Amino acid sequence: MADATSEHVADRLLAAIEQRQAPVCIGLDPVVDRLPERLKPTGRSAATHVHAIIEFCSHVLSNVAMHVPCVKFQSACFERYRHYGVQAMYELIAEAHALGLQVILDAKRGDIGISAEHYAAAVFGDETTDPRMSADWVTVNGYLGPDSIKPFIRPDRGAFVLVRTSNPGGDVVQARQLMDGNTVAQRMARIAAKVGGKTVSERGFSSIGAVVGATKSDEAASLRKHMPQQMILVPGFGAQGGGVKDVLPCFRRDEQGRGVGAIVTASRSVIYAYEKNEDVSWQEAVTEAAKRFADSIGKATGWR
Amino acid sequence: MADATSEHVADRLLAAIEQRQAPVCIGLDPVVDRLPERLKPTGRSAATHVHAIIEFCSHVLSNVAMHVPCVKFQSACFERYRHYGVQAMYELIAEAHALGLQVILDAKRGDIGISAEHYAAAVFGDETTDPRMSADWVTVNGYLGPDSIKPFIRPDRGAFVLVRTSNPGGDVVQARQLMDGNTVAQRMARIAAKVGGKTVSERGFSSIGAVVGATKSDEAASLRKHMPQQMILVPGFGAQGGGVKDVLPCFRRDEQGRGVGAIVTASRSVIYAYEKNEDVSWQEAVTEAAKRFADSIGKATGWR
Repeated sequence: MADATSEHVADRLLAAIEQRQAPVCIGLDPVVDRLPERLKPTGRSAATHVHAIIEFCSHVLSNVAMHVPCVKFQSACFERYRHYGVQAMYELIAEAHALGLQVILDAKRGDIGISAEHYAAAVFGDETTDPRMSADWVTVNGYLGPDSIKPFIRPDRGAFVLVRTSNPGGDVVQARQLMDGNTVAQRMARIAAKVGGKTVSERGFSSIGAVVGATKSDEAASLRKHMPQQMILVPGFGAQGGGVKDVLPCFRRDEQGRGVGAIVTASRSVIYAYEKNEDVSWQEAVTEAAKRFADSIGKATGWR
Repeated sequence: MADATSEHVADRLLAAIEQRQAPVCIGLDPVVDRLPERLKPTGRSAATHVHAIIEFCSHVLSNVAMHVPCVKFQSACFERYRHYGVQAMYELIAEAHALGLQVILDAKRGDIGISAEHYAAAVFGDETTDPRMSADWVTVNGYLGPDSIKPFIRPDRGAFVLVRTSNPGGDVVQARQLMDGNTVAQRMARIAAKVGGKTVSERGFSSIGAVVGATKSDEAASLRKHMPQQMILVPGFGAQGGGVKDVLPCFRRDEQGRGVGAIVTASRSVIYAYEKNEDVSWQEAVTEAAKRFADSIGKATGWR
């Protein structure tokens, strides 16, 4: 049985989920305007903003690490501060690993050839970088085809291909019907399944996963069928409107009837929980929200 | 008539093209293995690699600036070195601006909402950043729909939406036929045209452009029809196999019969020209290749 140091990234994530008894992920999308008052930056420079974000994220990580198996960093929130932000992001990723968390980098990269290989080297690191300062998974955009996914195949790392996103505007492309009867999203699902077919773990999941938004539950069952071996990352829960029932079609059932093969992510509803809970400290509000989130998904999927 | 300091990004690019009499762009995709021998890094650290890349790119910029209107930075080649590379990239962008060049950042970003706004703030800068350290244009991926393009609308900046890419694998998604008779690429072209419809310059071009690979010349005329007001960035010329005739369908003709509304980009065939030309210094080889490239496209499009 795989443990949290397993070589295969999918087995490692499954083991971490089993340990916490909840297939959930907390998204770190820090925006300075929404930080707790006492952490808000005093200056307007990138350096002071990044300093505030580091402090905030460090607290969030240490508060949620006991309750969830995984965190997802929204790369844009860090890249926004250029080199200051990028450096901070990889330092925070190392902190997350030190706390035993699996790490997804939500960077939605989508390029080909040597450029895609460079992106993979950046997020997964190479022989010159500190191995703790690298993500286990990255999100990738497959509009450029299989060429844009394959460079992210690594022995111990993985990628989630954007198949069906949670935003309303995604329909304009992804929900379009092709002549072959599939939607564009279903086509993308088949590409992810095909590219990932050769990197399937002992437990039956590929290192190439997929993103399917919680707001698209009516399409999720069909997408799951197209991708039986894909781990599915499910954003859009909470703040974006997806509920507990909406995420269930993304899961498969294991022998014990528990939901496997998907991981539900919540960001703003957890990391900014103090905005709606002033009875406790901001850290406690975040911790409570993370626990409630893990508990609701853990119960709905039969893990608790 | 617009000049190189015009507010509208499309008119600014058109003015720069007119000044150099060639609708071309040089792509900076620096890879340390291919640098001239005397510039190759002596160490293996990110810092030494980036140092070598800065020196190489600085020379290339100053050698090509007199001959071409525009350069394109491949973000992955810099991001590969994380914060070292990101810092270097924006410093080189400032150098390019100081040399009078228009700057495209080929980052292929594709996210929504606040994340997309963060990416736009990163590439275009904000009130805290040095305005020279920011790109005029960025490439964006529209798989997430109009939501992923709109945040890049700014009064004086622009975005090229990936419509039809030059790599063979792109066919698997982009060449697929939809029930409405369009291909996925044509659908994306219509999205770019619609989103860009409100930001058209005096000269008739939008700040939302499109990418159409030189290797897809048989589709280019139809895509051009779907996007009459889009500036088209045409990669894949040279090293990737596209020739002079292949790029012509991307252009419209102005009253003088000159090709307007597209810009052809060549990267490896120019910046590594010394690999095939050992008769002169590496800088001279690059300069000659840039001049030849500008001349061949300038002539084919009626500018020279």
